[in-house]
Amino acid sequence: MRNILIIGAGRSSASLIKYLLDKSSEENLHITIGDVSLENAQSKVNNHSNATAIQLDVFNAKERSEAIQKAAIVISMLPTRFHIEVAKDCITYGKHMVTASYISNEMKALDEEAKAKGLVFMNEIGLDPGIDHMSAMQVIDRIKEQGAKMLLFESFCGGLIAPESDTNLWNYKFTWNPRNVVLAGQGGASMFIQEGTYKYIPYHKLFRRTEFLTINGSGKFEAYANRDSLKYRSIYGLEDIKTMYRGTIRKVGFSRAWNVFVQLGMTDDTYTIEDSENMSYRDFTNLFLAYSPSDSVELKFRSYLKIDQDDIMWDKFVELDIFNPNKKVGLKNATPAEILQKILMDSWTLEAEDKDMIVMHHIFGYRYKEEKYQIESSMVITGDDQTYTAMAKTVGLPVAMATLRILNGDITTPGVQLPIRKEVYEPILKELEDYGINFVEKEVPYLGYNPESVKG
Amino acid sequence: MRNILIIGAGRSSASLIKYLLDKSSEENLHITIGDVSLENAQSKVNNHSNATAIQLDVFNAKERSEAIQKAAIVISMLPTRFHIEVAKDCITYGKHMVTASYISNEMKALDEEAKAKGLVFMNEIGLDPGIDHMSAMQVIDRIKEQGAKMLLFESFCGGLIAPESDTNLWNYKFTWNPRNVVLAGQGGASMFIQEGTYKYIPYHKLFRRTEFLTINGSGKFEAYANRDSLKYRSIYGLEDIKTMYRGTIRKVGFSRAWNVFVQLGMTDDTYTIEDSENMSYRDFTNLFLAYSPSDSVELKFRSYLKIDQDDIMWDKFVELDIFNPNKKVGLKNATPAEILQKILMDSWTLEAEDKDMIVMHHIFGYRYKEEKYQIESSMVITGDDQTYTAMAKTVGLPVAMATLRILNGDITTPGVQLPIRKEVYEPILKELEDYGINFVEKEVPYLGYNPESVKG
Repeated sequence: MRNILIIGAGRSSASLIKYLLDKSSEENLHITIGDVSLENAQSKVNNHSNATAIQLDVFNAKERSEAIQKAAIVISMLPTRFHIEVAKDCITYGKHMVTASYISNEMKALDEEAKAKGLVFMNEIGLDPGIDHMSAMQVIDRIKEQGAKMLLFESFCGGLIAPESDTNLWNYKFTWNPRNVVLAGQGGASMFIQEGTYKYIPYHKLFRRTEFLTINGSGKFEAYANRDSLKYRSIYGLEDIKTMYRGTIRKVGFSRAWNVFVQLGMTDDTYTIEDSENMSYRDFTNLFLAYSPSDSVELKFRSYLKIDQDDIMWDKFVELDIFNPNKKVGLKNATPAEILQKILMDSWTLEAEDKDMIVMHHIFGYRYKEEKYQIESSMVITGDDQTYTAMAKTVGLPVAMATLRILNGDITTPGVQLPIRKEVYEPILKELEDYGINFVEKEVPYLGYNPESVKG
Repeated sequence: MRNILIIGAGRSSASLIKYLLDKSSEENLHITIGDVSLENAQSKVNNHSNATAIQLDVFNAKERSEAIQKAAIVISMLPTRFHIEVAKDCITYGKHMVTASYISNEMKALDEEAKAKGLVFMNEIGLDPGIDHMSAMQVIDRIKEQGAKMLLFESFCGGLIAPESDTNLWNYKFTWNPRNVVLAGQGGASMFIQEGTYKYIPYHKLFRRTEFLTINGSGKFEAYANRDSLKYRSIYGLEDIKTMYRGTIRKVGFSRAWNVFVQLGMTDDTYTIEDSENMSYRDFTNLFLAYSPSDSVELKFRSYLKIDQDDIMWDKFVELDIFNPNKKVGLKNATPAEILQKILMDSWTLEAEDKDMIVMHHIFGYRYKEEKYQIESSMVITGDDQTYTAMAKTVGLPVAMATLRILNGDITTPGVQLPIRKEVYEPILKELEDYGINFVEKEVPYLGYNPESVKG
């Protein structure tokens, strides 16, 4: 039996574990699932004979190194900042490693050691990052191989609520870490390049500078720019491309309303509010509005943000109950972002029957023999239920498939890497199709980056 | 001869040095002026027989400790972050010290050692901080002594251009460090309390939430909130005050236009722009506007920021030449803030004959025997010329006066402190009047914090 150690048995590991257990007999695998919570690990094992649950605190060096020594390959599904402890042990004990996270500088620093020991450290092989890299590189390589020149690359991804579960005015629920949603876009200006011109958007304008996109069969969406699209020029080998833009997808109208929280300062996570615990939702809202001895919080809100009373946007805030004088914040010394997250979780938490949806959309523009062409490629995935969500499937399955391929010696290039090589993305994208994860491609007239046309 | 060491012979030390030299014979003083630039120090000595110029690099421990050992008291006019090296030597060699800077945490940590050695470490005794503390505490103490209760304290200060030198549409020139002006308000939300309600303003709204104030004889001004007004409650002994607000004064209309730079993201100092050196001012402006294959930068600018073409605000940007395709930025790997600073310095640098102006304005509200009262207190100072500017006088003279009083044993309370004690502020405010630095006080009807009335 070949032992695969999975560290972190959170929600995103459900499909990953199921895939490996389903293959365990045929592939001669034993799956060890380690989590700080033994119960959590046990629930994932679900009495399967080829799996063992163990209690594993990643900061306990003894627990960690013992488990890693017994494994043939290690998958870390922990948050990014915890991977490095695992990675160092994998170097020490000569184990391959797989993560779905962005390569940190610390991880990158292990590249030479991993190469020297012939170890594959595969990262960024979940959804985003992951399927985005693989599906983009497949088309980019194909375009380049035919002798054409890439002019434009735009890529969008979003974790949304499935249409049948879409029951609020925001057309949004938390299908992933709510804190990341509240803090999205913070930490510096967003940067990209359009038709050869650099563009920089500060955080407080990010949700007012959205792009629109239409996906056949799924309708119209909007997207706001991700932090740094520029770095993808070198990652994808598109150093001299004219347009490079990556964005996050929301249903149309979300960003315009979300911008109100940004304008008010409610997404700020850098300071704590005095006596936040005893404030009402209404008091919290009023913190960000000018003092007035007579005007209502509602009127000040609409006037400050210039919201007409018959604008649907107004109803979105009423729906969230942010003017309620009786609901208490109940969080001690909380930041505005923490309080906003709590308010949103009252309204945006998934119901038992709710299903999530993942949307990914790429646009490739290129020149071939003096003619310009454009390809659009889209993926829309709906969750099966609250366990095998679209997020769990799209994050976990590529991780599982890469792990098995590394174990079987089909992926061998050593070092700290991400899945942009054909030997990695070709078979995995092909296998993902068996699980209903596939892209629909269509050729469209070349538009270049032209906001009016993109909108139309 | 008693030796006073002044470290840092920058522009703000002109009045400080003149005051001490004028008193040097009568008070038996020798002034040693140390600066990284010996020439700079020599120019300030100006061949006066009671002064010596020395070359002093504050990071050269030998130079520094030798000079400090020879002094009876040390004045540091360096930027705040450099004081600590001087302060540690002052502890070692048992010397009093004076600065015009905010007390840093490192400086505060020396409090016990300074007390143990009986040393006075007087800080925040320039203009702002400095004259603001002293003039506020004088009135606050008087109000408290009559048995009244403070309800409201608002305080405003600004370094402006004198009306006779006010020659641009912004009614502003750089009379102080331009970088600080470009970065003003950044680093977190501004916080204050009004009528018992906490208020938090994010940076991107700061310049749209201004207050107005009218000063007899000088007209109407506006002010934006300083970072943290809340901490002044404990500093001034006003823990349970209902309204505490501190702001920075500008001429009316400045903030509304400055907000445009903030909205665009031009004041961002956290990232550098690729190929900034070869960009034109127009290219720089276009970085922050949406791509368009046809629209002009001017039209995109007005449309994005919603500026009418006949709005005087539009002319302010034209005046700065930010749409010029021929003027080059000429700064390598510069941040947006650095480039904006350069563009502004083209237009806002003082001419040889220009005079600066300092405006300070306090509002005190209090209750006495069931009646409410309000006092307004204002100071307006104009510079004599480009050497003895209003800034140099108001920063340097209180430092000089405090230094002489410590040396003469009139100020003796040891430790790291700021000038909020009567024994310090009373004589210094009195002596400042001899130099034309005085406040005009008037009683007005009590308004409380009421924006409509403040504006009226």
